[in-house]
Amino acid sequence: MRKPPIIHETRRVDSSRFLRLEQVDLEFSNGQQRTFERLRSSGLGAVIIVPMLDHDTVLLVHEYAVGTDRYELGLPKGRLDRDETVEQGADRELKEEVGYGARELHILGRLSLSPNYMTAMTHVVLARELYPERLVGDEPEELEVVSWKLSELHTLLERPDVTEGRSIAALFMAREYLAGRFRPQP
Amino acid sequence: MRKPPIIHETRRVDSSRFLRLEQVDLEFSNGQQRTFERLRSSGLGAVIIVPMLDHDTVLLVHEYAVGTDRYELGLPKGRLDRDETVEQGADRELKEEVGYGARELHILGRLSLSPNYMTAMTHVVLARELYPERLVGDEPEELEVVSWKLSELHTLLERPDVTEGRSIAALFMAREYLAGRFRPQP
Repeated sequence: MRKPPIIHETRRVDSSRFLRLEQVDLEFSNGQQRTFERLRSSGLGAVIIVPMLDHDTVLLVHEYAVGTDRYELGLPKGRLDRDETVEQGADRELKEEVGYGARELHILGRLSLSPNYMTAMTHVVLARELYPERLVGDEPEELEVVSWKLSELHTLLERPDVTEGRSIAALFMAREYLAGRFRPQP
Repeated sequence: MRKPPIIHETRRVDSSRFLRLEQVDLEFSNGQQRTFERLRSSGLGAVIIVPMLDHDTVLLVHEYAVGTDRYELGLPKGRLDRDETVEQGADRELKEEVGYGARELHILGRLSLSPNYMTAMTHVVLARELYPERLVGDEPEELEVVSWKLSELHTLLERPDVTEGRSIAALFMAREYLAGRFRPQP
């Protein structure tokens, strides 16, 4: 297990490069009025990638997460850059975080974080026909890549470092899709 | 389909009752330094409930979500109140949002939203042995309750109003648990 980073300082700030706090005054169809808060993300969106090394082996990354202040095991993901498609962004993040490119990329759907108070949307991209290729991203350290079996997702759920709703949801979406049950709507 | 609420005004604010923006100065074990941003949630945490009407029927709610500005279909959920356990909070939210209490409540695990930049953690609670009981919460309108089959989650994934990562993850966690495969760790 890698040694987690040292936190030198934590300070409260009022604004962020990626997030903006908003208040929204609402009137429901029954006349009830409420002021709700929401977090607006920068508009380009994000991708989460399900990289399949073969028909049952998925590649995960073990990455330090400052939100929970520990290493978390989950799918590779990242924000889309300007002027790239969802598939291009997924392929780039895969090369940066896992060291593979994909010859076949297929969008399975979109996941929200918490639709009740966040605008953020993440595209789920299944990546197949992988080949080794690394791009240097902005990661502070190389990520440990961990392979898992889609047929063994129930044991993944038992790991204390597997908590991310989007990763778990995207893995089951991929499994249902690959079993021929789930048909993504365009 | 219900008429969504009217947005009268949206304004940017610097602080929130539930969220706080932070910057964190980090030093990784390889000496790399980074300043990361994160969102700190109020400390009590949240619950998401998987309410089982029978061994295969789960109850979902159709609720207006200001983050996506539309009605979303997902599991009932909410923030924990002071002085209540996870199970008590799950039972209260179930009574407020779905109109049922539960004689059996079982914690399946915890889900993060986005561990890379959020501290928020949500307890996943399986609720069984339901009985009708309604509590009045702070919802601006009564929520529409929709029943679904756990054996038909693949068709749920095809609905455009089903996007929440935590709801999808919690439903599959419950299905794996009820099938006797996933054993939650204490």
